[in-house]
Amino acid sequence: MTTMHSADGLWTNLRLAPGATTPDSPAVDRAAISVVNGSIDYVGAEALAPPLKPGSAMHDGRNALVTPGLIDCHTHLVYGGQRANEFAMRLAGASYEEVTRAGGGIVSSVKATRAASEAHLFALAAPRLEALLSEGVCAIEIKSGYGLSLAEERKQLRVARRLGEAYGVTVKTTFLGAHALPPEFAGRSQAYIDEVCTQMMPALAAEGLIDAVDVFCETIGFSLAETEQVFLAAQQLGLPVKLHAEQLSDMGGAALAARYKALSCDHIEHLNAEGIAAMKASGTVAVLLPGAYYFLRDTHMPPIHALRDAGVPMAVATDHNPGTAPALSLLLMLNMASTLFRLTVPEALAGVTHHAATALGLQATHGKIAVGYPANFVLWPFAEAAELVYWLGQRPACRVVRQGRMAQERARS
Amino acid sequence: MTTMHSADGLWTNLRLAPGATTPDSPAVDRAAISVVNGSIDYVGAEALAPPLKPGSAMHDGRNALVTPGLIDCHTHLVYGGQRANEFAMRLAGASYEEVTRAGGGIVSSVKATRAASEAHLFALAAPRLEALLSEGVCAIEIKSGYGLSLAEERKQLRVARRLGEAYGVTVKTTFLGAHALPPEFAGRSQAYIDEVCTQMMPALAAEGLIDAVDVFCETIGFSLAETEQVFLAAQQLGLPVKLHAEQLSDMGGAALAARYKALSCDHIEHLNAEGIAAMKASGTVAVLLPGAYYFLRDTHMPPIHALRDAGVPMAVATDHNPGTAPALSLLLMLNMASTLFRLTVPEALAGVTHHAATALGLQATHGKIAVGYPANFVLWPFAEAAELVYWLGQRPACRVVRQGRMAQERARS
Ligand SMILES: [Zn+2]
Ligand SMILES: [Zn+2]
Repeated sequence: MTTMHSADGLWTNLRLAPGATTPDSPAVDRAAISVVNGSIDYVGAEALAPPLKPGSAMHDGRNALVTPGLIDCHTHLVYGGQRANEFAMRLAGASYEEVTRAGGGIVSSVKATRAASEAHLFALAAPRLEALLSEGVCAIEIKSGYGLSLAEERKQLRVARRLGEAYGVTVKTTFLGAHALPPEFAGRSQAYIDEVCTQMMPALAAEGLIDAVDVFCETIGFSLAETEQVFLAAQQLGLPVKLHAEQLSDMGGAALAARYKALSCDHIEHLNAEGIAAMKASGTVAVLLPGAYYFLRDTHMPPIHALRDAGVPMAVATDHNPGTAPALSLLLMLNMASTLFRLTVPEALAGVTHHAATALGLQATHGKIAVGYPANFVLWPFAEAAELVYWLGQRPACRVVRQGRMAQERARS
Repeated sequence: MTTMHSADGLWTNLRLAPGATTPDSPAVDRAAISVVNGSIDYVGAEALAPPLKPGSAMHDGRNALVTPGLIDCHTHLVYGGQRANEFAMRLAGASYEEVTRAGGGIVSSVKATRAASEAHLFALAAPRLEALLSEGVCAIEIKSGYGLSLAEERKQLRVARRLGEAYGVTVKTTFLGAHALPPEFAGRSQAYIDEVCTQMMPALAAEGLIDAVDVFCETIGFSLAETEQVFLAAQQLGLPVKLHAEQLSDMGGAALAARYKALSCDHIEHLNAEGIAAMKASGTVAVLLPGAYYFLRDTHMPPIHALRDAGVPMAVATDHNPGTAPALSLLLMLNMASTLFRLTVPEALAGVTHHAATALGLQATHGKIAVGYPANFVLWPFAEAAELVYWLGQRPACRVVRQGRMAQERARS
């Protein structure tokens, strides 16, 4: 792992990207950032920066472009195994049934996750997290949902917490017990949802392992009524909710989620006008997941124009998961959000900063470079902000300040 | 740049990927590779490997999966400027005319390339090349085509040669003078093609700067007759040809190229049955460029089934260029070839090894791990070969042996 140093001191010779300090802030050339005790003390024109304190460090930005630390607001990062062979089988022409008979599908991830020790799960997730961190991610959401029992969901959520501590990155944990029906509850969906609501969620919440609660609301997942039952249980525990909504069909999940003041509705390829209006009214963020759209060869685009017209904030995330989005690059998701969904460059960048922060309830501390915020920012070797979105499969040599500490620069190969 | 060491010695504890030694070779566990004077001296079961010579190095493969060095057989890697702002303008709704009025389009790349010194062009291309090398690329094709005059095409091709020398990577240069009509020849296409054939090509060939000749044959490029004129000139100089064929429309370019025994026809989204048969007969490789297909939001797939049925070898490349495929990852192109074009995993891997070598006329020295071949192979931290294709936007920590030398391991961030 990387050596980390305090980022305290004065960072000079920077160019602030548009939107770096507030959603609509203009680009600022010859800018500086002052970091004191790991927090932003000043950001703006270099000429107006406070003087360097005696003994404090001076950091030459070398004319880098600066953005807030990136935020990946939807991932399933912690799981056992991977599903490359399933991918290969499908390409070789295997049917869904053949893949299932060969042990594929989400069941295989549940099995591998349950079989792995906490230490092994950590070791498996660590390089995935490192890939995301290496391109400027400073906060990340990690869902459970491959354990599907109290003990196994706990194991996943504990790994998520430990990743945050080990890497000095902000981790928001989301309890997704209602991800799939575990094999031992086959045909007893209601009984499993009862278990999720009355046993798993209260216990894990009491252990401080749940920052938010999510449901996979879909014809192949859980029903609207089951979703509401989970939301009610979350509400009683004071936990915010999110929803995997309208990915494959229009279930009306977004409108329901908005009634429960959901932080976000995610995927939303089939979101309808009522859902959009409800999300706008409740301040719910639309989380776009172009990697899953791409990987599944989906052709039904989320209603971007209508979301834009309604003023619903749009975030962009990897949806990293072994079945439908084995995505290890948030920058690639930016490109896909623009190429496939036609987000403008400012929209795409707000989608992994401001709006991603809101989707995690982190808007008071993350998503912009603002006085009093923990120091989370990235120095990019780019002439202009559009390069964050334009290059395809890039590996920029960026410098990352994460929670007031800076990682050693990544060596160029 | 990376420190390089001789790769001579015995590499043990390897797993050979399927297809590593011949197109149909099976996976071999507990394998070894012996490298002598930078060339493969042995590859196969560890138990049958020759004894380590005294004073020779022992390299522990740590159970890595091994493939041949990857080959990117279609790039436009050397150019001035970039077109991120043009990308941003298009997303913001600018029309083609508005982009052109703002100085965008291929003309902007020609202008920026002409304005850059040879040293500056080298410095701009170097990090792009490094990105590709870091994921196991050992041979690469680099086209000219942004200079469009004798002196400016020479500058591009010299940079391509120098990149090969500086990085110890096999570079094949392709003269693409017939890429676009330069502004000073506006309305005089025939005069420019005459210049290409009678002035530029002979002079650059005499300087040893041309390994192959290519044309952009398209309604918005050059006609079939102009293409044939260029091919004839190449034939007279003993230079092999390639073609940007049937990307946007069916021009009949592939059949023409096959008549000239072209090494490859590239893009070929609109390739017809006659072209497929002709390519099969002439041994011409079909180079698939899924990054451009993706970036342009094309929906007209190349005829993969028909190519497969006909037995036409298929390669996969980045088509790296600033306008339609700013792609910096050949691994991402593998994923796109499978996800978008439904290549199987073995087809995708053959597409960046065996068949990519053939597309460059390098099949006698590159594309497999074979006795007598220069040592070009990659050690991957993967359980199975399908992971090369499955992960999306990955940055695997691979170890690369390139032309008998090994790069220092890339540091993990
Ligand atoms: Zn998800
Ligand atoms: Zn090309």
